[in-house]
Amino acid sequence: MAGSYTLFFNPMSRALIAKWAFAEVGVEPKLAMVEWDAKPAALLQANPMGKLPTIIHHAKGGDRVVTEAAAICHYLAEMEAPDLLPREDEKADYFRWMFFAAGPAESAIMNKAMGWEPEGVKQEATVGFGSYDRMVDTLDNWFQHHDYVCGKRFTMADVYVGAQVDWGLNFGTLTERDSFKAYQARLQGRDAYKAAMAPPAG
Amino acid sequence: MAGSYTLFFNPMSRALIAKWAFAEVGVEPKLAMVEWDAKPAALLQANPMGKLPTIIHHAKGGDRVVTEAAAICHYLAEMEAPDLLPREDEKADYFRWMFFAAGPAESAIMNKAMGWEPEGVKQEATVGFGSYDRMVDTLDNWFQHHDYVCGKRFTMADVYVGAQVDWGLNFGTLTERDSFKAYQARLQGRDAYKAAMAPPAG
Repeated sequence: MAGSYTLFFNPMSRALIAKWAFAEVGVEPKLAMVEWDAKPAALLQANPMGKLPTIIHHAKGGDRVVTEAAAICHYLAEMEAPDLLPREDEKADYFRWMFFAAGPAESAIMNKAMGWEPEGVKQEATVGFGSYDRMVDTLDNWFQHHDYVCGKRFTMADVYVGAQVDWGLNFGTLTERDSFKAYQARLQGRDAYKAAMAPPAG
Repeated sequence: MAGSYTLFFNPMSRALIAKWAFAEVGVEPKLAMVEWDAKPAALLQANPMGKLPTIIHHAKGGDRVVTEAAAICHYLAEMEAPDLLPREDEKADYFRWMFFAAGPAESAIMNKAMGWEPEGVKQEATVGFGSYDRMVDTLDNWFQHHDYVCGKRFTMADVYVGAQVDWGLNFGTLTERDSFKAYQARLQGRDAYKAAMAPPAG
C-alpha cells in the first residue's frame, strides 16, 4: 500500500519538482496550498525555512518531515519505488550528480542570475562551484556521453538533475547546449512529467 | 575485503571531509596529492571541475568516480559501512540534512562570506537558501533537540553536516550557537575525526 503524504505546494515554485517525483512513484499526495505572503503555521513548524517543497510522510511510527527537493525525490524512491533507486554499480553516478545538481549547479546558476560571480582564481577557489562556465562544461560533458544520470536507464536522480536542466533552459539561466536540449526532450516525453506539469483542470 | 580507492587530496581543502569519511569506514585510500597551481591530468579527467574532494573507486567492474563531498561520504557508507547508513525510520532526517548542508547551508555560508546577500523578500524568494539567518536558526533548532542528524545515533550524515558546522565555526563563517558548539565537541571527540585531522607524522 502506498504511503500517505502531504505536499506543501505552490505551482510557481520548486514544489513542482516534488510533484513530478510523486507522479514518478505513482503516489498522489494531499496538496496543502501555500501563498507567499501567508505561509501556513503547519509549514513553518515542519520547516522553519518556510521553503517549498516540504513534505510530511504520515508514516506508521509517526510523521516524518523531508525538505530540500533532492532529498524529497530520493526519499520517495526509497519509500515507494525501489526500481528508481540506483543499482550497486549506479550508485557512484547517482549520488555524484544528485549532489552536483543540489550544490555547485544550483549555486552557480543562482549566483549568476543574481549577478554574483567570483572573479579570479582566489575567489573561484573559495566558492564551492568554482566557476559557472566549468560547471556547465562538466554537466555538458556528462550528457554528451550519457542519456541519463546513470547511463542508459532513467532513475530518480533524473527528476532532480533533470529539473535543474529543464528549468535552467526554460528560464534562460542555464546556457543552452545540444546535450541539455536532448536530455530535456527525453524527460519532457515522460508521462509522469506531463501529468505533473499540466495545469489543474477546471 | 575493503575496496581500493584513490583520493585526490590537499590538506587545505574540503578533501579533509573525505579523509574523515574514509577514517569512519576504516578504509585507507591511496592519496594523490594535488597542488592548486598544477592540477594533475588524472584529476581533470575524473572531474573536469578540478575540485577536491574527488575519489576513484577501483571497483571490480571498473573504476567509478565520485565527486562532491556529501556524495563521497554517502557512497563510502554504501560500499564499506552499512551501519553508518540510515535505518528505514532515519532516512527522512538523513537525506533532508545531507541536502540541506550541501545546498542552502553551503550556499548561504559561502555567499555571506563573499559579501553576496539577498535583499528584500523578492530576492530571498529567488535564492535557494532564502536567508542566512533563517538557515542558521533552522539548523540551530534541529541541534537544540537532537544530538546527531538522525537523533541519538551517529551516522555518515554527521560527517558531512558536521564538517559544515565544524569548519563554519573554525573559520568564523557560521554564527556561533550553543547547539553548534556542543555538536562540534561530540564530533571532535571521535577517533576517526582525530585520525583524519591530525597533521601527517614527519
